[in-house]
Amino acid sequence: MTDLPDDPRLALMLLSSMVEPGDAELDDLIDESGPIETVKRLWEGDVPDRLRRLTSAAVACTHDPADRAAQIASATEACGARVLIPGDPDWPDQLRDLLLVCDADEPHVRPPRCLWVRGRQRLSRLCRRSVAIVGSRAASEYGQHLADDLAADLTEAGWTIVSGGAFGIDRAAHLGALARGGATVSVLACGVEEPYPKGNRSMFDLIVEKGLLVSEWPPGSTVMKHRFLTRNRVIAALTAGTVVIEAACRSGARNTARHAAELGRVLMFTPGPVTSSMSVGVHQLAREPWEARLVTRAEEVIEDLTGIGGPLATPPPPHRRPFDRLTEVEARLVEALPRGYVVETDRLAAAAGVPAATAAETLERLRSIGWVDRIDDRWRLARGGRC
Amino acid sequence: MTDLPDDPRLALMLLSSMVEPGDAELDDLIDESGPIETVKRLWEGDVPDRLRRLTSAAVACTHDPADRAAQIASATEACGARVLIPGDPDWPDQLRDLLLVCDADEPHVRPPRCLWVRGRQRLSRLCRRSVAIVGSRAASEYGQHLADDLAADLTEAGWTIVSGGAFGIDRAAHLGALARGGATVSVLACGVEEPYPKGNRSMFDLIVEKGLLVSEWPPGSTVMKHRFLTRNRVIAALTAGTVVIEAACRSGARNTARHAAELGRVLMFTPGPVTSSMSVGVHQLAREPWEARLVTRAEEVIEDLTGIGGPLATPPPPHRRPFDRLTEVEARLVEALPRGYVVETDRLAAAAGVPAATAAETLERLRSIGWVDRIDDRWRLARGGRC
Repeated sequence: MTDLPDDPRLALMLLSSMVEPGDAELDDLIDESGPIETVKRLWEGDVPDRLRRLTSAAVACTHDPADRAAQIASATEACGARVLIPGDPDWPDQLRDLLLVCDADEPHVRPPRCLWVRGRQRLSRLCRRSVAIVGSRAASEYGQHLADDLAADLTEAGWTIVSGGAFGIDRAAHLGALARGGATVSVLACGVEEPYPKGNRSMFDLIVEKGLLVSEWPPGSTVMKHRFLTRNRVIAALTAGTVVIEAACRSGARNTARHAAELGRVLMFTPGPVTSSMSVGVHQLAREPWEARLVTRAEEVIEDLTGIGGPLATPPPPHRRPFDRLTEVEARLVEALPRGYVVETDRLAAAAGVPAATAAETLERLRSIGWVDRIDDRWRLARGGRC
Repeated sequence: MTDLPDDPRLALMLLSSMVEPGDAELDDLIDESGPIETVKRLWEGDVPDRLRRLTSAAVACTHDPADRAAQIASATEACGARVLIPGDPDWPDQLRDLLLVCDADEPHVRPPRCLWVRGRQRLSRLCRRSVAIVGSRAASEYGQHLADDLAADLTEAGWTIVSGGAFGIDRAAHLGALARGGATVSVLACGVEEPYPKGNRSMFDLIVEKGLLVSEWPPGSTVMKHRFLTRNRVIAALTAGTVVIEAACRSGARNTARHAAELGRVLMFTPGPVTSSMSVGVHQLAREPWEARLVTRAEEVIEDLTGIGGPLATPPPPHRRPFDRLTEVEARLVEALPRGYVVETDRLAAAAGVPAATAAETLERLRSIGWVDRIDDRWRLARGGRC
């Protein structure tokens, strides 16, 4: 009989080394059975086909999962890192908000299973007043200057800068924060023992000393394209808002921006010359239905973070009609909308037993009186939920 | 007995030479008595004290008002201009919208009494599909490049460019339009016979040939600071929307922008580097409650002009609750709001006989269901008016 890890933390570390973060099927299993039982079921082959196929090679060559978990733990220790799991005092509770926006189309938008953390600071404390600054790797001088300035001024005002450790805007933001003695947080798409890119090694050393490196992947994990996208949701969820500084037409920063908007975080961008390809992506943000706010300096960022909402100060929706005064159709649609999910009109119409055209019209009206929010072509219950 | 002009057009020309456009007291008198009778009453001293004081010098030294009017008419003819008055086939009817936003605080925001027009084109036809491009006189290379490009592309797409003939952005916009053979319209704050500034003389010559010079002031009138502000409302009202390209922190372009927003025109701006003092004013527009739209190229301007409203394509307000389903207090407030006026909460509360706090709360609710619009701290009936 195989020797299983007897500690949920070790089990989650092991699971994270086997199945990518955000795998809805595995995460459902963990929610249902707990991490230790999930490891057991994987090794017994008692899991859905897809998960079995996904893990069969790892299972086959790991005769002793407990030992494998211990190896990950010692690699973690070797680089001076530790592992946080949900429920730990230092676990950032705002990550739970990711449950509010994950849906069938985006199963990977789940809270992380566990986080490797490297540095002396406490993650939950650092992120209590934090803002993400993200943007293009191939940033212009202008963009880097802006990121540096904004990060420095926000740091002075007591805000923690969270970014992704990349070249360009991320680097400028981290350095701007470090230069003012700020404990900046870099959320990586690889193991914390060898942060990517290597060209930022000195910066990462400073961050380990003053701030925190954070990752969902165990030591030894290398960056992959999809891991950056998975990582972005954590940057958006950890912070009260995201400022996008320079982004080309297609850019990962826009992905982070969308997560921030869907999470109800404050989405901001700094404008630039319309003649600069590095500003095309940020200007697009302003024309999308995300209500991205134009900011030009730290005071405006703080005004937006503290004044018009964000997770820290969400005002109640304005005087909306009470539930018992909704029409029959309105009430059915509101009731059919599961709290925390983002649902297409058609699916919602079907759930409420209302013709699609009527649903579309009624949802627009419900939106105008503050009952629902529209995100692209989908709907979610507005903050405050059902009365 | 003095000899009076016997033609309303001549009377309006004479009156415009005596009292500045937008004088609410004179304009009320003209509305009430007609222009010929108003001239008579001025010469008889049968007008309110303030108007008598304002005009006494002119009246004293003009023994023959009909002759004076004829002089203005011949100066008009001498520079190849003509005069349009309301009711003329070529009068741009959209100027009437200025009646919708004038109020006690801004009596000068009235439609013009008459317009001097110089050029071969028809004003109402040119302005049917027109957009204003305005901005700083001390524009950067970047801003002028942008204005030129945008004007050229909008001209190619069949839009008339309206601007103010100043150096900087105005000039670049007019030239961009002229370069594509566009019939651009320059609305001046002085007589059309000697447009200001003289440094733009060659451009004005081209405009007379291809487009139109327009002014509310008779030949011989020179620019004054307050005339620029008075003129701005005409630029905003003539067009379906205004694009602000570069504006310093305090700038006349922002005044035009405010008029455009209050008139329900589409207000747009082009972003620039946050490090440029010439972009500070445009970026402020984005953070004011005017819903200014960020645009980076002609396609986006056209999308905004044709897609989301403007006077040419105003969609009906979204499914608002019918009047007979409003509550007693809601209905009283809607009825108390005079069509086309912008009224403070307190004044409206008094008119409706509703406590101010209740009024404020109820108006917010009426706004959420599309009955009223808020402009700063004041209210107006939303488009579509009372059913």
